[in-house]
Amino acid sequence: MGRTFNVAVVGATGAVGQVMLSVLAERKFPVKQVVAVASAKSAGKRVKFGDHELLVQDLATFDPAGIEIALFSAGGSISKQYAPKFAAAGAVVIDNSSAFRYESDIPLVVSEVNPQEIAKRPRGIIANPNCSTMQMLVALAPIHRAVGIERINVATYQSVSGTGQKAIAELERQNAALVNGGEAKAEVYPIQIARNVIPHGGDFCDNGYTTEEMKLVWETRKILGDDSIQVNPTVVRVPVVYGHSEAVHIETREKITATQARELLQRSPGVEVVDEPRGGGYPTPVTHAAGRDPAFVGRIREDISHPRGLDLWVVSDNIRKGAALNAVQIAELLAQAYS
Amino acid sequence: MGRTFNVAVVGATGAVGQVMLSVLAERKFPVKQVVAVASAKSAGKRVKFGDHELLVQDLATFDPAGIEIALFSAGGSISKQYAPKFAAAGAVVIDNSSAFRYESDIPLVVSEVNPQEIAKRPRGIIANPNCSTMQMLVALAPIHRAVGIERINVATYQSVSGTGQKAIAELERQNAALVNGGEAKAEVYPIQIARNVIPHGGDFCDNGYTTEEMKLVWETRKILGDDSIQVNPTVVRVPVVYGHSEAVHIETREKITATQARELLQRSPGVEVVDEPRGGGYPTPVTHAAGRDPAFVGRIREDISHPRGLDLWVVSDNIRKGAALNAVQIAELLAQAYS
Repeated sequence: MGRTFNVAVVGATGAVGQVMLSVLAERKFPVKQVVAVASAKSAGKRVKFGDHELLVQDLATFDPAGIEIALFSAGGSISKQYAPKFAAAGAVVIDNSSAFRYESDIPLVVSEVNPQEIAKRPRGIIANPNCSTMQMLVALAPIHRAVGIERINVATYQSVSGTGQKAIAELERQNAALVNGGEAKAEVYPIQIARNVIPHGGDFCDNGYTTEEMKLVWETRKILGDDSIQVNPTVVRVPVVYGHSEAVHIETREKITATQARELLQRSPGVEVVDEPRGGGYPTPVTHAAGRDPAFVGRIREDISHPRGLDLWVVSDNIRKGAALNAVQIAELLAQAYS
Repeated sequence: MGRTFNVAVVGATGAVGQVMLSVLAERKFPVKQVVAVASAKSAGKRVKFGDHELLVQDLATFDPAGIEIALFSAGGSISKQYAPKFAAAGAVVIDNSSAFRYESDIPLVVSEVNPQEIAKRPRGIIANPNCSTMQMLVALAPIHRAVGIERINVATYQSVSGTGQKAIAELERQNAALVNGGEAKAEVYPIQIARNVIPHGGDFCDNGYTTEEMKLVWETRKILGDDSIQVNPTVVRVPVVYGHSEAVHIETREKITATQARELLQRSPGVEVVDEPRGGGYPTPVTHAAGRDPAFVGRIREDISHPRGLDLWVVSDNIRKGAALNAVQIAELLAQAYS
């Protein structure tokens, strides 16, 4: 029997935390014990872990001694405050917030792209990338390795689950209100999201981009280890529950044909190519992403506007590969390194 | 009193046809008589024209003699068969289908962009551009005139009304089914559109683009009169009822700053700038487009990935400016030319 681990999931009642628990169970992660932790307001609730139920512990009073791996998905301010405490108590923290992602001594890891980075973790913290960067890079890293990527124009179609449980509830409430002839009240988003699209994620920066857009710029460079890659994102929220989609237009250093890219992606880990020129011959959130692991790639074509351009359509479950699954995959890499 | 005209609206019961009638009434187009025409299946129905109701005539038996201006929005095959007959009978046909758009002796006109083209109409037919091209060029033409546009990367977020009444009904039906725990049956689109996004419009071409994407390429060049402009579109259908949105990333010949672009667009006809760095400080289909005339432009920013790049977010009512309004504006240009 291999080594087993004491694991904590912090933010266990959230949209991502619940999926972290179910992915740990599904993938039979070698757990000794799993502890569900959340804020005082959720403490005492029960959450599912496989066939079991876990009693949620209060983060404020929880003692991290003995925890070996802690998966955090409770927002940036909770991570800032508690992740260093868990690390000081001996845990490796895998943090899904953006709190530490851009610090030079924190590795930022996509399991298929730069797994070797987990070994360098002087602060005991490994950051999980933003969901929209994650799925884009699962698809683009093999192309970058093969022919080099110079520039990325990307427009996203991001589902509300990326914002959290409250946003899922808001979309459902607005959908129900509109179907029944009522009004769609906006609380989580600044304006109605049902039957609408909103070109806004996070906060506005001085350069006119939003923080959700700049994450795609910063994280792409850090994960691919290449600061020369130029990225131009427009991030848009759409009334989809699960699954982010991205129209990705890239310019490569050397020419790659659509056929070459399709063959390359078909043998790349974490990627599933769905690309036939017919109705439904491409991935969409509802038909492919929700509840599934891969980054699905379709609409692969040579860009008619640029001699070394390539277009792709990338869809993935933002909660699974975009957050919970990758965090668990990092934990698996750690477990392998220990054994 | 100025001259008045006998006007026919062909496809009068469709999503665009009905708005053509209401826009003609709203804008007090100088009509002598307005005739509503449609297929046999809609003949005998009544449609609104201002405070009046019009009895719908059967296109198959309708005699176009005496019609001076005919607005067609009944699909490509109807236009191919009947537009030449109306033109032969003396009418100027303004055709909203793609049947004639790419023929060299048919002008393709956006009223704010290339109004002078209406004078050259050897076949008596003027084509109305595709909705997604229309709103993009209302915003881009002033920039092209000022600094020249070399390349356009565009990803669209197109509403279902662009597909027609049946698609609006399908989205409503799917929304209601899902709210009530039922199944979303797809008939108009190849897969579910409610709570989903579909990267597919029209048919697939050999180069991997769809016909809806290639329309953006061909029509942009024809309307701006510049075949050197490179266009790379991804067209995506989203579960929005009215209003198309577009993430437009352009590369210009000379550098234009975001401030210069904003000022230029603020004084451009048919454009309304909505661009503040705060929640709701940008246009969206629900908050700005539905039922309104302008192409709304926000998220104007200098592209950090390219020395002469500029990003814009363009939203417009695809049925109004994207179809019915522009057709009526072309009719107004004709009426002015006659008087």
